[in-house]
Amino acid sequence: MQPFNGNEEEQFRRVYLDYNATTPVEPEVIEAITEALREAWGNPSSSYRPGQKAKEIISQSRESIAKMVGGCSDDIIFMSGGTEANNFVFHTAVKYFWDTYRKAKIHGKEEGPVEMGGALPHIITSNVEHDSISLVAEQLVKEGKAEVTFVPVSKVTARVEVEDVMSAIRPNTCLISIMLANNETGVLMPIAEISQRVQALSKKRGAPRILLHTDAAQAIGKLQVDTKELGVDYLTIVGHKAVLQKKFYAPRIGALYVKGPGVTTPVYPLFFGGGQERNFRPGTENTPMIAGLGKAAELVHRNLERYANGMRETCEYLEQRLEEVFGKEKLHFNSHFSGSKRLPNTCNVSFLGEHLQGRKVLSLCHRLLASVGAACHSDQGDSPSPILLNCGIPPSVAANALRLSVGRGTTKGDVDVVIEDLRAAVQQLEGLS
Amino acid sequence: MQPFNGNEEEQFRRVYLDYNATTPVEPEVIEAITEALREAWGNPSSSYRPGQKAKEIISQSRESIAKMVGGCSDDIIFMSGGTEANNFVFHTAVKYFWDTYRKAKIHGKEEGPVEMGGALPHIITSNVEHDSISLVAEQLVKEGKAEVTFVPVSKVTARVEVEDVMSAIRPNTCLISIMLANNETGVLMPIAEISQRVQALSKKRGAPRILLHTDAAQAIGKLQVDTKELGVDYLTIVGHKAVLQKKFYAPRIGALYVKGPGVTTPVYPLFFGGGQERNFRPGTENTPMIAGLGKAAELVHRNLERYANGMRETCEYLEQRLEEVFGKEKLHFNSHFSGSKRLPNTCNVSFLGEHLQGRKVLSLCHRLLASVGAACHSDQGDSPSPILLNCGIPPSVAANALRLSVGRGTTKGDVDVVIEDLRAAVQQLEGLS
Repeated sequence: MQPFNGNEEEQFRRVYLDYNATTPVEPEVIEAITEALREAWGNPSSSYRPGQKAKEIISQSRESIAKMVGGCSDDIIFMSGGTEANNFVFHTAVKYFWDTYRKAKIHGKEEGPVEMGGALPHIITSNVEHDSISLVAEQLVKEGKAEVTFVPVSKVTARVEVEDVMSAIRPNTCLISIMLANNETGVLMPIAEISQRVQALSKKRGAPRILLHTDAAQAIGKLQVDTKELGVDYLTIVGHKAVLQKKFYAPRIGALYVKGPGVTTPVYPLFFGGGQERNFRPGTENTPMIAGLGKAAELVHRNLERYANGMRETCEYLEQRLEEVFGKEKLHFNSHFSGSKRLPNTCNVSFLGEHLQGRKVLSLCHRLLASVGAACHSDQGDSPSPILLNCGIPPSVAANALRLSVGRGTTKGDVDVVIEDLRAAVQQLEGLS
Repeated sequence: MQPFNGNEEEQFRRVYLDYNATTPVEPEVIEAITEALREAWGNPSSSYRPGQKAKEIISQSRESIAKMVGGCSDDIIFMSGGTEANNFVFHTAVKYFWDTYRKAKIHGKEEGPVEMGGALPHIITSNVEHDSISLVAEQLVKEGKAEVTFVPVSKVTARVEVEDVMSAIRPNTCLISIMLANNETGVLMPIAEISQRVQALSKKRGAPRILLHTDAAQAIGKLQVDTKELGVDYLTIVGHKAVLQKKFYAPRIGALYVKGPGVTTPVYPLFFGGGQERNFRPGTENTPMIAGLGKAAELVHRNLERYANGMRETCEYLEQRLEEVFGKEKLHFNSHFSGSKRLPNTCNVSFLGEHLQGRKVLSLCHRLLASVGAACHSDQGDSPSPILLNCGIPPSVAANALRLSVGRGTTKGDVDVVIEDLRAAVQQLEGLS
């Protein structure tokens, strides 16, 4: 698919390879949104037709989204986006800790560890998370409301290793939040394994239960995401994406999967208001965007294998052509880590050489539209991505990184255009030096 | 405008008079949203065209919204809706109180009242506010985080009286939050007068400053809303509306006006994440909905007088016809209060009689679509609206209330249809009794 098929002639055709930053919205999804704007503008709490139609659309969307992640309809809470969903989970975990502790004390139980008395809630996350996780964690520490361990990813696999997570657990640990796939390297994290180990441990120890959250924003639409297989309590679903995260051709809205919200898994609202979303998240429902998210989920549920295979094939062709044209010794793939699985669409590559910084290369590309990393860090200038550094990529290599992420409609022809563009840019930079 | 011009024939034409619950979205606004979905899907933080286009749209919308409320572009912070905006203001006020107090203590100043030492932040609001105000206030009290005074409205004027607000102020008062217009009665609150009195008082006393907030969701698009005239620090703008509130034909998104955010007026983010909205409210911008809100604001700014005059004329015709057909002694207008101004579009009326409960009357209307009060209280069955009771309407009258709110396109012909429908329904109920 060429998002830029307007006035450009073929020779000036742009190729967009920044699908990890954001994707265009699928025409079918736009249609669903527009239809909802026209026909389902009513208040879903009202009894007449445009309200009832809105209610139906919301309920259908909820079902499609639940199906996509292997949950029940009731497990889906609509939110304004990934940032809100991630903030919500941290807020809930902290409140849950204090509620458990207070209750335990009230009932005079002394089953929990004695040292809990003075302890703050403890949260475990990784050092390669999105800002909407890492900054919330830092804020909680700053406000003296929680202790946080940022488990470093392995510099060999770029993954959070299960053993490292397990050994970070303390008696006061109440939340583990690890992303499902990293947005820069595409590396998948071992969430299912962490879940199994944590569940086994939880059986032995008392309250507070250790809650498990994964931000799946980057993974949905690219690989099978099944909350049952993953064994998580919370999973962030992002249509509109929070910055950095991979969208699935859906509009800007999010949802949080919660396993049995309020029954099996604690939920503490961030907002108070008109009772919508079973009071978990009040505020009149954003019917049109919910309609779009539902349609996008339906498309993913139906076509995931085709989408993923297509992206994998294109991405492999891209890497093969890079090697053929530039030679292996000229390249470093920042998305290849020994022993780690990764997203099918992400090629993070550095051209090795003193003057080949990612930003410089991109500025000389006339056709390729891509980025050097996360859009929300676009003000960091030429300093290398902290995510890549944390994954063990040397600074001089990380500074040269280009993140090339393909989409559902990217063709081999597009790749050929990009390769030509990159060859010219690299040649020009090396000629200058 | 007839939202239901589908398959119904003229004789089955429905007339929608629940514009205070929600409005359809203007075609021009739908167009702005769809265009943004197609052309401006890029991440506004990225440098290529669809991202830059998104950035432009957001900046234009911000300007249109600022113009509509007489503020600067920088004063507008986009939020997911009115519920979030209202929650945000309360959260900010509480944090500001503690920050001020801590700072005052650190610098060894003893200018503030001595009794502040143990006091919680104190907030003043009214007893006729939307749930997204009243429930936040109650939650803060429940959690022991604030003291709240719910100033009762006068049973004569249905307004919060300035003297009542002033005498509720304590040394630890940090926020006054009063709606600009009530959603059920349409009555306007004396915000400008409160502001003048509070500012005069603030000059005399030290920190914490008393912040003034008004939820203008119900008023925008129906009367001139000027933040400078009102003299408020915060003003909630709702396109999509929080339940109960009047929309201005815009999509479901909100914004908060803050007078000089972070400089003149304190702002404490609720969320942490990718740095958008100057970190006041991170999360990737919802470009299409922002585009729609901007377009709606532009329409209001350009056409407000025409809109308001049209609604006033239709609403007056409606009340006149009601009196002519049913007789004055058969009616009680719950939107008429001596000495109070009100919204130009809201007619809240009770048919007097033992068997004429609002819900019963509506259920027998074949053409009229309206409500008995707030959509988000639709589960309250036949119990009268607590808002009307708080305004001094007797329970037997309040139980019979119908809220008829006209829109920009409601015609006198629509009113005639409604009158016929109501006459038949009332006759039928009185025949049964």
